Amino acid sequence: MKKNTKVNAAILIIGNEILSGRTQDTNTSTLATWLNSIGVKVSEVRVIPDDEKIIIETLNVLRNLNNYVFTTGGIGPTHDDITAESVSKAFGLKYEIHKEAFKILENYYQPGEFNDGRKRMAWMPKDSKLILNPTSGAPGFNIDNVFCLPGVPSIMKSMLGGLKNKIVGGEPILSQTINLRTVESEIASSLSKVQDENMDVEIGSYPFFHAGKLGVSIVLRSEDQSKIDTCHSEILKFINKKNIEIVDR
Amino acid sequence: MKKNTKVNAAILIIGNEILSGRTQDTNTSTLATWLNSIGVKVSEVRVIPDDEKIIIETLNVLRNLNNYVFTTGGIGPTHDDITAESVSKAFGLKYEIHKEAFKILENYYQPGEFNDGRKRMAWMPKDSKLILNPTSGAPGFNIDNVFCLPGVPSIMKSMLGGLKNKIVGGEPILSQTINLRTVESEIASSLSKVQDENMDVEIGSYPFFHAGKLGVSIVLRSEDQSKIDTCHSEILKFINKKNIEIVDR
Repeated sequence: MKKNTKVNAAILIIGNEILSGRTQDTNTSTLATWLNSIGVKVSEVRVIPDDEKIIIETLNVLRNLNNYVFTTGGIGPTHDDITAESVSKAFGLKYEIHKEAFKILENYYQPGEFNDGRKRMAWMPKDSKLILNPTSGAPGFNIDNVFCLPGVPSIMKSMLGGLKNKIVGGEPILSQTINLRTVESEIASSLSKVQDENMDVEIGSYPFFHAGKLGVSIVLRSEDQSKIDTCHSEILKFINKKNIEIVDR
Repeated sequence: MKKNTKVNAAILIIGNEILSGRTQDTNTSTLATWLNSIGVKVSEVRVIPDDEKIIIETLNVLRNLNNYVFTTGGIGPTHDDITAESVSKAFGLKYEIHKEAFKILENYYQPGEFNDGRKRMAWMPKDSKLILNPTSGAPGFNIDNVFCLPGVPSIMKSMLGGLKNKIVGGEPILSQTINLRTVESEIASSLSKVQDENMDVEIGSYPFFHAGKLGVSIVLRSEDQSKIDTCHSEILKFINKKNIEIVDR
């Protein structure tokens, strides 16, 4: 794992159903929000198909470029769930029954219901650490800097709590939003000057349409609250001068 | 552009707001659904920050691997809108005022409202073809096999109609869904057999929870309806044998 004061992660969404448009991915937003809150910046997201070769290649690129990689999808009981085997191959590790996962699943299901499909969910890369699943039994797994989570959003989300002490984040990324009753072009050049003078703060400008009215959200992001404050006061100066109203949104 | 009976595309979502979790991306699903309907398969999606170097590198990878690349985001009037300049650099093309785009914008705004920020939206890679915007004036652009669209979902969506005759798709990808009152593990091994015997059909299995009841959607995808029909009847056989109910969902 890279040593760095800035900690970054990639999100790898595995699943044909996202690429076909059939399913709207929401795991990216859930994971990104959570990672930001613990000081991990998301460097990129990739969505790829259920294809072993592509999973292996992509994972090997992302895990070398990032402190952490989070995958979602492909760890269920059916033939198209190939994430665990692909991750094993990416790491050159044996794909085998994880004894603890097997026991968890065996206990979770009623006697006679722990069938072959469900047993398949105990297969993981050798020496995986488990990510416990408080919702539906079947655990995710962690090997080195890669964390493999299920694709079903509610289940995925319920597993993040158990991950918190396994992830070492940097400084939390702070964020402040100013909502204005204006249009982007009205503030573009003033905002650009503030950005040029405050390169350490990420300044985003996002138009919105709310309750029949147009507006712009300016989002300031940095690990350093004092730098955000400096930007904020410079922005207040020009919006006062331009007589632009601040709104709740 | 690659000549191929199968036509593929990558989607490149450009924007810090997606990576921070602040904004839920919906453009992937809109674009993917539309592309599938015109016979273009989405091979991968990447979400990257508003960072010139990363945009250039990623675009140059994706445009060489795919028949088409669709970008969303970063073509507005503010300092963080750097897509058009980055795309120019990726192609080694001059970044300049597009005369037709300038005229469109000049006509769109009231006299006196065509300010510097808005003029910025007329800057594009040299010799870009315009993608007209029926919603808010500012056009997108196309250069070679790359199509650059805005990030605001409703505007992006309204521009797809004008693109249809610029994209040459392959055979439309047909899809059929069977919703079952069962759980994945119950059908996993039978479904796996059907997949093994029908490698040309992409068979996906997706658990759902609807109106308080669990179920599984089986999705069959292929360019060939007869192959889907074959799979469908093989699946009907095993669900009849297992007494599994077909539901509307």
